Amino acid sequence: MCRWLAYSGSPILLENMIYKPTHSLIDQSLHAKLGVETTNGDGFGVGWYGSARESPAIVREIGPAWSNRNLREIAGHVRSHLFFAHIRASTGSAVQQTNCHPFRHGRWMWMHNGAVTDFHRIRRDLVTAVAPSLFLDIEGSTDSEVMFYLALTFGLEQDPPGAVARMAGLVERVGHEHGIEFPLQMTVAVTDGQSLWAFRYSSQKASRSLFYSTRVETLRSLHPDLDFLREASDDTRLIVSEPLGDLPGVWNEVPESTYGVVHPGGDEMAPFTPR
Amino acid sequence: MCRWLAYSGSPILLENMIYKPTHSLIDQSLHAKLGVETTNGDGFGVGWYGSARESPAIVREIGPAWSNRNLREIAGHVRSHLFFAHIRASTGSAVQQTNCHPFRHGRWMWMHNGAVTDFHRIRRDLVTAVAPSLFLDIEGSTDSEVMFYLALTFGLEQDPPGAVARMAGLVERVGHEHGIEFPLQMTVAVTDGQSLWAFRYSSQKASRSLFYSTRVETLRSLHPDLDFLREASDDTRLIVSEPLGDLPGVWNEVPESTYGVVHPGGDEMAPFTPR
Amino acid sequence: MCRWLAYSGSPILLENMIYKPTHSLIDQSLHAKLGVETTNGDGFGVGWYGSARESPAIVREIGPAWSNRNLREIAGHVRSHLFFAHIRASTGSAVQQTNCHPFRHGRWMWMHNGAVTDFHRIRRDLVTAVAPSLFLDIEGSTDSEVMFYLALTFGLEQDPPGAVARMAGLVERVGHEHGIEFPLQMTVAVTDGQSLWAFRYSSQKASRSLFYSTRVETLRSLHPDLDFLREASDDTRLIVSEPLGDLPGVWNEVPESTYGVVHPGGDEMAPFTPR
Amino acid sequence: MCRWLAYSGSPILLENMIYKPTHSLIDQSLHAKLGVETTNGDGFGVGWYGSARESPAIVREIGPAWSNRNLREIAGHVRSHLFFAHIRASTGSAVQQTNCHPFRHGRWMWMHNGAVTDFHRIRRDLVTAVAPSLFLDIEGSTDSEVMFYLALTFGLEQDPPGAVARMAGLVERVGHEHGIEFPLQMTVAVTDGQSLWAFRYSSQKASRSLFYSTRVETLRSLHPDLDFLREASDDTRLIVSEPLGDLPGVWNEVPESTYGVVHPGGDEMAPFTPR
Repeated sequence: MCRWLAYSGSPILLENMIYKPTHSLIDQSLHAKLGVETTNGDGFGVGWYGSARESPAIVREIGPAWSNRNLREIAGHVRSHLFFAHIRASTGSAVQQTNCHPFRHGRWMWMHNGAVTDFHRIRRDLVTAVAPSLFLDIEGSTDSEVMFYLALTFGLEQDPPGAVARMAGLVERVGHEHGIEFPLQMTVAVTDGQSLWAFRYSSQKASRSLFYSTRVETLRSLHPDLDFLREASDDTRLIVSEPLGDLPGVWNEVPESTYGVVHPGGDEMAPFTPR
Repeated sequence: MCRWLAYSGSPILLENMIYKPTHSLIDQSLHAKLGVETTNGDGFGVGWYGSARESPAIVREIGPAWSNRNLREIAGHVRSHLFFAHIRASTGSAVQQTNCHPFRHGRWMWMHNGAVTDFHRIRRDLVTAVAPSLFLDIEGSTDSEVMFYLALTFGLEQDPPGAVARMAGLVERVGHEHGIEFPLQMTVAVTDGQSLWAFRYSSQKASRSLFYSTRVETLRSLHPDLDFLREASDDTRLIVSEPLGDLPGVWNEVPESTYGVVHPGGDEMAPFTPR
Repeated sequence: MCRWLAYSGSPILLENMIYKPTHSLIDQSLHAKLGVETTNGDGFGVGWYGSARESPAIVREIGPAWSNRNLREIAGHVRSHLFFAHIRASTGSAVQQTNCHPFRHGRWMWMHNGAVTDFHRIRRDLVTAVAPSLFLDIEGSTDSEVMFYLALTFGLEQDPPGAVARMAGLVERVGHEHGIEFPLQMTVAVTDGQSLWAFRYSSQKASRSLFYSTRVETLRSLHPDLDFLREASDDTRLIVSEPLGDLPGVWNEVPESTYGVVHPGGDEMAPFTPR
Repeated sequence: MCRWLAYSGSPILLENMIYKPTHSLIDQSLHAKLGVETTNGDGFGVGWYGSARESPAIVREIGPAWSNRNLREIAGHVRSHLFFAHIRASTGSAVQQTNCHPFRHGRWMWMHNGAVTDFHRIRRDLVTAVAPSLFLDIEGSTDSEVMFYLALTFGLEQDPPGAVARMAGLVERVGHEHGIEFPLQMTVAVTDGQSLWAFRYSSQKASRSLFYSTRVETLRSLHPDLDFLREASDDTRLIVSEPLGDLPGVWNEVPESTYGVVHPGGDEMAPFTPR
């Protein structure tokens, strides 16, 4: 199990989302409330775009986020309009930098919470389904990275929801062939630096928690005292594994088997079905 | 807050005490029950004697114990008649190897759970009370290491209980001079490779938990089914921050303001008062 | 021995100075030419200002710079008008984050190449000369950090050259009292985010190498083909332990027992004498 | 490029081979003489057997060996009759624990110096040739680990020289199919805790250096003053990437395209040809 957050909107210091909220991601690294485990101390990562035209920067380390000084420094000095942050609780694979999220390919970033059930049993079948030219770039040993490279194989850069659906479909088919009843459990965030897609799905239809923030204009009327909201652009959105605090009206659950997309000027949600 | 265990007795694989018990130190690194915090993920250390005539080996790392493969390897292959293991939860000082326990000086090892209250305010006064020839060897920035070097300054190698009492007395005097009501909170283990001393004390008389195992011969009659006990020598003892399991009759609380000593052939307890 | 570079001028991506030159700091981490050792693999650090009004960000890690992916990411995505980068070769003190340069205090950054001779013998005398209110903030065990806190004690924030001279004077006096013939060897860079001071001095008058770049307007006429120079402001300066390449006319040695200051709009050099 | 040593013989403290020789493996981590690079600072590993019946312990870390305190501690306190030590210089794959040597499978250990040329281009073909049941256990991203799992696939546990020959043959065939002229460069050590095999081979017939120590009885007559030799059993052997010192008569080069085996009571060499 892991916890993550994805931010898209007015450029802000990363610490505003990673450190400052009451139940920030750093707090979740020690005291997650909705996860399988309360501790997420097996590495972390943060990825941000300087501009929508560049590849993102990705900083990942293998220790816990709560005590990491470099993360504190970066979050306190770097501003971005679109960033991911992830804290990891390993479900067995090695604690190493190449297993930390987010993963990057060109301008794309990917992060995941959940698991491919019995991944070690079907890893070989999944890995060999990755396009040979993409296979070269797999560096770690996680299910999450293989899911990313399968989605890239299936056209992530052209049709994100379609490619993720095909990835999920393959994982379920291969899992079922190996007698695995519920092969996939996932919340996934993926972005190209402009749009941000988030997916909530599990074979068992009992997916890990996922929330999105209410529209900024609604929040402004609910909480006229919050300075932060005055500066946030109307299309600012946050998608998180679990709410960053208890402020009423801020957090909405992403429905089961659903994906959403946030892009400059709008957003939408739609059902998600593996192909 | 931290958790620790000290073992003295028949030579055994370290993993028998560090990994195998139900509520082992590794389990406590994620789920401590009696500590201030449930997570102890800010580094760990293990120190063991190959023989009673040598300096101990000390292996310390800055990541969490629960995911550390090297600790697993060492614990699974090294046997010792006397070893310490410690998992750290930093109360503010840096997560670095020189701040991990146990600390070593010659043949002596020291580890600590607790804190010197407002240590940063009185650190200078305490550090300058360390003998200049010992001052050279202070490497880290913890209160625990300074406590060790003060005890060494006050004659730890000749009279351990007396030296620890003088250290505690100094910490309390200096603390009170700075207006700190309860300057010291400690459970401490210290050894020269032959005898093992353990101290439980706090200025507030509300000390962190500390337990010792029941005599092996008593345990044998209580639990005739436990193979492990058949092989353990009569003078085998374990001292721990919190019990490693729920087996009835195994664990006894060290009383408030008390120290104990375990040595080949016997053990005793006595009141502890700072001087 | 260590290697460092300090940049002040037009805001640029850090990688332009840290990675791209032929004999970049990364190359120097494996193949230093003018240092005592060719390898500088005992940690590194980078510190940069987002604006002249803020505290700098400081990222430090304990592994070698040459293989560090996070440094690569940061250097490729962060722009700054004033930054320090340092690669460390330990002369004995522990390889830990709190011993990596640059050191920071408020808006000030400090880095050092060289050593206090027999530091462990005079550490106690030097450390106790630090102002008690500053003593609290010393975290590591290096001579370099103690030199910084002595300079702060002696008024670094009001009169940098004077404070560094008093620090050097104290180190020499204390060293001589302990029978150390040549107590100090240093090249030091220090900045408040606006001005940048660099010092070259050693008790033996055989100081570690230090170079500064030629004025940009001169370089432009020497190398009209270099695009980079066209974009650099006239007051852009680089100060380095050793030249980053072989381009004729670019590098000038800082004379023995000299300091220089670079500030927006100008720069100057003057003799340096310990007080 | 990397450097390694393999020891088989009378049980000794690891430090006798890893730290004490003039040109020890630790010295080679900074100043290798016969390697492609002088620095081997991208991680290290040590593996040892407590007895010939157990799996070996393997301790691996990602920093340089020269500054690692835990390696110093282990080497100074652990004795073994058969151990491997390896220092890594990455040729591109990530610096992470799962890429450090030695690799282990059951009671077998494997380490490698050299490279599969253009490994990323043929990795997929090689990995898919690994037996599916073994594929599960591949954790890292190095050529060396894949070579080990191919050898296991081809019967390493039954016929080590034959399995390594088939592995080398496959690497060369696949390499040639991809237009790679000289696909393989290797010195490899492998053991089951009783016998020790060492291979020197490269497609180009210009293999990395490999040396073995002279028979102990001959060394005793050459160097009657060396205490160490008096205690060493007659079948004690050391195989190393480069000599650990300049003592005359100690070191013999393993011939090109040759393998040797050392086992209790004897040793032999034979030509090596890929199949």
